[in-house]
Amino acid sequence: MKAAYENDNIFAKILRGDIPCHKVYEDDDAIAFMDVMPQSEGHVLVVPKAASRNLLDADPGILATIAPLLQKLAIAAKSAFGADGISLMQFNEGAGGQTVFHLHFHIIPRYDGVPLQAHGRGMEDPDVLSANAEKLRAALAA
Amino acid sequence: MKAAYENDNIFAKILRGDIPCHKVYEDDDAIAFMDVMPQSEGHVLVVPKAASRNLLDADPGILATIAPLLQKLAIAAKSAFGADGISLMQFNEGAGGQTVFHLHFHIIPRYDGVPLQAHGRGMEDPDVLSANAEKLRAALAA
Repeated sequence: MKAAYENDNIFAKILRGDIPCHKVYEDDDAIAFMDVMPQSEGHVLVVPKAASRNLLDADPGILATIAPLLQKLAIAAKSAFGADGISLMQFNEGAGGQTVFHLHFHIIPRYDGVPLQAHGRGMEDPDVLSANAEKLRAALAA
Repeated sequence: MKAAYENDNIFAKILRGDIPCHKVYEDDDAIAFMDVMPQSEGHVLVVPKAASRNLLDADPGILATIAPLLQKLAIAAKSAFGADGISLMQFNEGAGGQTVFHLHFHIIPRYDGVPLQAHGRGMEDPDVLSANAEKLRAALAA
């Protein structure tokens, strides 16, 4: 049995503009914004606008469109935050690590010797998120 | 400074046929085979054939081609192993978790209540890998 898309998830609300976000990028197909509970400095999410629960029910054409954008954001994040590496993660269903049920990709800057922090420890300071979004927008524009 | 692609990495050797693998899928653009040090039952890798070190230096067109294949493998793996979820991961540079420096994507079946095992604990029994590759090929063909 396939789990359904639920339209009241928090990313759907962000996409509708009902909830604000620290936006980094937007085009017709996707939006990128800072994760409010970052696992590492500069943790950003790429969220396709099309409604799908996760990778399993997504339109393959949307995935093809999004993939090069993931690369752009990964390159920009590495540069913007002086990161040593990038971990890309995408979780499907609760067992797979998913907590918000709208398809999204995590782009997580990584730093030598710094282990990944657990997700959901707490909310990051909005000023930090805002400054990081600005750094990332500047790197994308460079 | 951009790190270069090195042609003697183990996935390049698998792609050249110099080293065997438990192959699940192959087309003109990519190959998929079982991870010999699975973090979970059914852990499979999708490896584009084009030479790139990781996501950061990959051809965007290759990424667009590969993305729908990641979905296909994720759906097949969830079905083949009766998994409750799927974690998709892709690591860039050592700090990002990368250990083999040819672009690859991890598709990791996840099971309720079973935490992810550390990578590199040891080699899985080849008979188990072979049986899992067969299950996954059958699910892809279904």
